[in-house]
Amino acid sequence: MALIVQKFGGSSVADAESIKRVAKRIVDTRRAGNDVVVAVSAMGDTTDELLELARDVAPNPAPRELDMLLSSGERISMALLAMTIHSMGLEARSFTGSQAGMITTADHGSARIVDVTPVRLREALDDGAIVIVAGFQGFNRDTRDITTLGRGGSDTTAVALAAALNADVCEIYSDVDGIFTCDPRVVPLAKKLDTIGAEEMLELAANGAKVLYIRAVEYARRHSVLIHARSTFTSNEGTYVLGEGMADPRLAEGEDMTDVIGKEEPVVAGVAIDRSQAKITVVGVPDVPGSASAIFSRVSKTGANIDMIVQNVQSASPGRTDISFTLPKEQAPDVAKQLQAEQSELGFENLVHDDQVGKLSVVGAGMRSHSGVSLTLFEALSRDAINIEMISTSEIRISVLLRETDLDKAARTVHTAYHLDGDVEATVYAGTGR
Amino acid sequence: MALIVQKFGGSSVADAESIKRVAKRIVDTRRAGNDVVVAVSAMGDTTDELLELARDVAPNPAPRELDMLLSSGERISMALLAMTIHSMGLEARSFTGSQAGMITTADHGSARIVDVTPVRLREALDDGAIVIVAGFQGFNRDTRDITTLGRGGSDTTAVALAAALNADVCEIYSDVDGIFTCDPRVVPLAKKLDTIGAEEMLELAANGAKVLYIRAVEYARRHSVLIHARSTFTSNEGTYVLGEGMADPRLAEGEDMTDVIGKEEPVVAGVAIDRSQAKITVVGVPDVPGSASAIFSRVSKTGANIDMIVQNVQSASPGRTDISFTLPKEQAPDVAKQLQAEQSELGFENLVHDDQVGKLSVVGAGMRSHSGVSLTLFEALSRDAINIEMISTSEIRISVLLRETDLDKAARTVHTAYHLDGDVEATVYAGTGR
Repeated sequence: MALIVQKFGGSSVADAESIKRVAKRIVDTRRAGNDVVVAVSAMGDTTDELLELARDVAPNPAPRELDMLLSSGERISMALLAMTIHSMGLEARSFTGSQAGMITTADHGSARIVDVTPVRLREALDDGAIVIVAGFQGFNRDTRDITTLGRGGSDTTAVALAAALNADVCEIYSDVDGIFTCDPRVVPLAKKLDTIGAEEMLELAANGAKVLYIRAVEYARRHSVLIHARSTFTSNEGTYVLGEGMADPRLAEGEDMTDVIGKEEPVVAGVAIDRSQAKITVVGVPDVPGSASAIFSRVSKTGANIDMIVQNVQSASPGRTDISFTLPKEQAPDVAKQLQAEQSELGFENLVHDDQVGKLSVVGAGMRSHSGVSLTLFEALSRDAINIEMISTSEIRISVLLRETDLDKAARTVHTAYHLDGDVEATVYAGTGR
Repeated sequence: MALIVQKFGGSSVADAESIKRVAKRIVDTRRAGNDVVVAVSAMGDTTDELLELARDVAPNPAPRELDMLLSSGERISMALLAMTIHSMGLEARSFTGSQAGMITTADHGSARIVDVTPVRLREALDDGAIVIVAGFQGFNRDTRDITTLGRGGSDTTAVALAAALNADVCEIYSDVDGIFTCDPRVVPLAKKLDTIGAEEMLELAANGAKVLYIRAVEYARRHSVLIHARSTFTSNEGTYVLGEGMADPRLAEGEDMTDVIGKEEPVVAGVAIDRSQAKITVVGVPDVPGSASAIFSRVSKTGANIDMIVQNVQSASPGRTDISFTLPKEQAPDVAKQLQAEQSELGFENLVHDDQVGKLSVVGAGMRSHSGVSLTLFEALSRDAINIEMISTSEIRISVLLRETDLDKAARTVHTAYHLDGDVEATVYAGTGR
């Protein structure tokens, strides 16, 4: 008998019909002989509605109370889900984050899980019950207050439960079939991946892929949890996210990968695109030691998350250089204002704030051992006369910053260049992928 | 410094504006130098909406899960109220039933409070914070599950908190000014009472008055909690509900009641009317020992709450008698069906189910020492040619069952006959009194 953790997001439990569909899937999993633990998000737009209520009464809600408020959303969905399963004739029990032993730091709104003590969940499983746990929430042992985990928190709840209960797999459901080689809404010939390495998944998620949250994948990698990203709407297998040394669950003992897919692992796993960034260029910075550090010490004070950085070899003015960096669009105005306020101290000539950029990233663990991977990217873009504005790389990733208007075309071109295209167009759902 | 418990119902926190008004009142109470503990219900129709969601997914929701679901309503309102107070510059902390130490029996949906261990509330008060507690909910120590208290639960929460914290007063807010000598929507000249005895209040509540819930008044009487029923919309004093031996809080030391109201306490405190009952008459029951017991043993099996019972001296058929009783309208069809199914065993001739009846009750502790109280009632009704169908009495109450169409007119007549009329018409709000 396997122990399976399943996570359902807000759109999967948006109304009574969706809840019944999810309940049916849970019941089927249980009837197939598995123990089942479910992490569930708040219904549909509940969290946004609660946030709006909060803003109506308090412009700047007290964080402790905001967490108390938001945590009620999962209480509603989990109780409804448990009673639906009950009415289908199986025993189900719902547990809040604190009842489930989800112990976190005291950082309201962005708490991190520090321990999971699932005593009551084990009791319920021993009683043969299906366990439903509120996603996104926990509690702090010192303050005894309720906390929430921030964006993507329910994915993290599911993975943390899987780790604590030593589950066989953590199934993360959404309205897409799994992880694709690129967003199928942009690249119609994108293929669903059967497996992907956790490291690759992290790079894709960090660079714009939306199916899984980084924190959940990180937690899974650290605790060797096998994630299975799959669709609420089909019973097809989705994509397994494999940590280091983890066996492909599709393989029987003694088989190796070629028995399943008939060929070696591809060098490139996928292409991610990201429209969320802006570029700031500080023009005509004195080309002396300490200039960059002076600029970025100012930027870091704003709390902005810098991604790519490029320093030009030479500026238009002699003895000066230009420094460009990218950061989330919503943080750019603040940073630009901060730098402009200190223009004379920093000694630069001009500042350009550009939010018409897009980032394309090619990710693949095979890059470590294969050369010429970046050449394929540059040649493909060059063939289509797409200009590269910035480049950054990691061991298993190459990212380029492009005009935002070039991004979709670039994604299709690059996808083809790396032989990632499938034979048929992928089915695209109306949903957002969450 | 006094410790004041305040209870606000769902209509008092129905939207952002109402929550701000309630917050202002709480803040004013705190700024006047009092410690404040607040019990709050779910916003407006939240509980009904959650019940509807439950019915959409499960025809017969599991009680444990239903309580988990419903308890989220107060989480929302209490967190919003706490953050509103915060944004007004005062410290406020919200607590769920279990955080507040509201320990109950395990009867989901109608749990009874068995103990209150308000450790965290005292800590918060010691820190100078205003304490906001979720009404209507608690938890069971053995099952560690969340429970709800059933109808009027938030009133009971407030009174239980007042008892456990030894509060000076428990203020129960609604949209009416206090307890009236009769429902002002029926009797325009009804007067607000400055005080009422707890016993009288219990009789009025049990016989149709809607301002306070019986369980809360009982709890207050048992634990010597002073209840002050008052309006959210004015700062006028409402009605104090005085338990045995409790001093009128409007009196300074050494004063007696005549200093305040200039006359003795009235014999009759008020008139209650009740449209919620039906009458069943079992016609032609064999007039032999055991007939009544046979009938009521059948009735009790249905779980119905019998109120008045009358056995006629003689039926139309010789050797037979008629037995009439009243019970809540919604329970009557079931009981009638049950009796009819056993007509041959019970040996009665016919059964009449009548839900066009209304009950009028006159309540007053003074009845114990005054004679002629019932005569006034009978004469008043007779003068207006209103027919009495059944009569029942307690030590401090006389109730009569009338045609429902006669009920309003009877209430006005009787109100006048006991000299309860005020000089001006009472202000009637659109609300329901809760």
